[in-house]
Amino acid sequence: MYIPVILGTAREGRQSENAAKFIHAEAAKFGFQTELIDVRDYRIPATDNTQQSPTAKKLEEKISRADGFIIVSPEYNHGYPGELKMMLDLLYQQYAYKPLGICGVSGGPIGGARMAEQLREVAVELHMVPIREAVYFPLVQNLFDEKGNIKDKAYYERIKPFFSELEWYARALKVARESTKR
Amino acid sequence: MYIPVILGTAREGRQSENAAKFIHAEAAKFGFQTELIDVRDYRIPATDNTQQSPTAKKLEEKISRADGFIIVSPEYNHGYPGELKMMLDLLYQQYAYKPLGICGVSGGPIGGARMAEQLREVAVELHMVPIREAVYFPLVQNLFDEKGNIKDKAYYERIKPFFSELEWYARALKVARESTKR
Amino acid sequence: MYIPVILGTAREGRQSENAAKFIHAEAAKFGFQTELIDVRDYRIPATDNTQQSPTAKKLEEKISRADGFIIVSPEYNHGYPGELKMMLDLLYQQYAYKPLGICGVSGGPIGGARMAEQLREVAVELHMVPIREAVYFPLVQNLFDEKGNIKDKAYYERIKPFFSELEWYARALKVARESTKR
Amino acid sequence: MYIPVILGTAREGRQSENAAKFIHAEAAKFGFQTELIDVRDYRIPATDNTQQSPTAKKLEEKISRADGFIIVSPEYNHGYPGELKMMLDLLYQQYAYKPLGICGVSGGPIGGARMAEQLREVAVELHMVPIREAVYFPLVQNLFDEKGNIKDKAYYERIKPFFSELEWYARALKVARESTKR
Repeated sequence: MYIPVILGTAREGRQSENAAKFIHAEAAKFGFQTELIDVRDYRIPATDNTQQSPTAKKLEEKISRADGFIIVSPEYNHGYPGELKMMLDLLYQQYAYKPLGICGVSGGPIGGARMAEQLREVAVELHMVPIREAVYFPLVQNLFDEKGNIKDKAYYERIKPFFSELEWYARALKVARESTKR
Repeated sequence: MYIPVILGTAREGRQSENAAKFIHAEAAKFGFQTELIDVRDYRIPATDNTQQSPTAKKLEEKISRADGFIIVSPEYNHGYPGELKMMLDLLYQQYAYKPLGICGVSGGPIGGARMAEQLREVAVELHMVPIREAVYFPLVQNLFDEKGNIKDKAYYERIKPFFSELEWYARALKVARESTKR
Repeated sequence: MYIPVILGTAREGRQSENAAKFIHAEAAKFGFQTELIDVRDYRIPATDNTQQSPTAKKLEEKISRADGFIIVSPEYNHGYPGELKMMLDLLYQQYAYKPLGICGVSGGPIGGARMAEQLREVAVELHMVPIREAVYFPLVQNLFDEKGNIKDKAYYERIKPFFSELEWYARALKVARESTKR
Repeated sequence: MYIPVILGTAREGRQSENAAKFIHAEAAKFGFQTELIDVRDYRIPATDNTQQSPTAKKLEEKISRADGFIIVSPEYNHGYPGELKMMLDLLYQQYAYKPLGICGVSGGPIGGARMAEQLREVAVELHMVPIREAVYFPLVQNLFDEKGNIKDKAYYERIKPFFSELEWYARALKVARESTKR
């Protein structure tokens, strides 16, 4: 199962990077083939956000090959970062019939749960399957040490149902896609 | 595939009943085993909305047996009808790993699309898979004749990708549930 | 300023009752004229949810007279309780040009923030002004003692910007309604 | 009343430009002091989306001076364009206590109503007042002639309650801001 981890913010000083690296490392340990897709590497000139743009072409190979996705993203003003939305909007049919797991990050106590709801609505339109399980990183500034290691060890348990449900859907949908040519 | 059609409003004079009966009849022609579940038959005294209530028990048999769901519902003030939400909240694990297709109804021109978005967020929490395809019945007062027959024949084509996608997910998830005991 | 506090769940054993009573008492101390409106007292037979129903008539006097509203409600499956939505849908123009403050309650760690987002969408359609400030009661089962007194004293500070912003909007909109006959 | 019109997409071939120009021209006729703010002129390098960035500084003068806002934006995959969100996220307190009217644009029949719902959630967090009235431009490719003139004359009536409500809120909130120093 190839399940890339998408880091959804490009801001300087982004705290979500720690969360994304943690999820990426644990996803690999769980058994997923994975890599980190950083929105910084997919800057979109807004006037060229089509599936034919060079950025879209670069992204297309990974998204097409994926069996599912993890997005790790902060919540900005109750929504998703604009740079994440610009990247997602580049492609369409490449996402179809693949599950999406969301990890929310916030400086405040909510953990990005509202961003997750808005992103799930977008995911459904992209024919993805947004899964119920999610991992939240509230008050993220307190969660990682200076080396980027997670301090709250409870997360090692908390991520298990998230990875497990994502794997279940990734497998179920892969079998179905392959047997029906969708 | 047993795919019941849930009529989501209990109001007097509800226009969604025509839409629900149309969808129910077409679902049967498409090949689904189906029946109409009317929220009027699942009135919930608000103080007894638990999975142990008689209403929940009555609903449980159908929801447990289902391979997927269609909800036909109006949009009230940009959200879902309260009686629909009370009924859905009665159960939980019985919905899991089954697809949900939504048909929106409205007196205005939007067709219930905002209700669909809110309902999809609820569906994800119930471990359902809200599918992308949807059928909208805007300006519903003009869509059916006095016998309740649909006047706009384009709907016969419009429902095909909706039923087809729902069937695809129902089958994919049933196979996966049965092989993994979820 | 008459600002009633609406308790949005009717369930047996509802934990939101403690939160609503706390908010109601503090609202009175803050200087609002207030009372508790309990959805249990506004049971709606789903087939009679019109503005002419006895329940609507009973509610109408309070809603018409109000200068703003506070809703204290749990989040059920990422949405609002059905009984709350049924009650809100009874009326329409009586809400117009008045602010709404939302207090969210949950057994889990999110505190009802997703319910608040869905409810704000409904509020906008009802011509209300949903204010930014909110108060959340996550893990509510730990927040009150057996007499219903709040244990976490930080809430006494936390509610101040909430009441203050609500009062600001209530006053601004009252002045404007009265000078323009809206 | 200074009410700028924000065009929310930067894509090549954007159909929303016609809608934004129409709304801008009519807003001026209605009596608003207005101008068109084009997201193309506020390109944000994602790593510099802070209130201290040059782009933010350039935007700040207009947003600070405004008495309210109109956003004309397409719906992309049920959400708002990323470039619009990046621009909005640049500032914060400059939006506070000012109304926002939304015009939705779509190639399909829904007219951007789902984008409007997501954007209203963001607006509330920015302390704006998202108004109920909205104008939708569904099937936008059919609505304007080759010179960009609107073909459906019904829009001249349709925009009146939108401008009128926006003006009412702009005035009410301006009076309140000035008398309370918010």
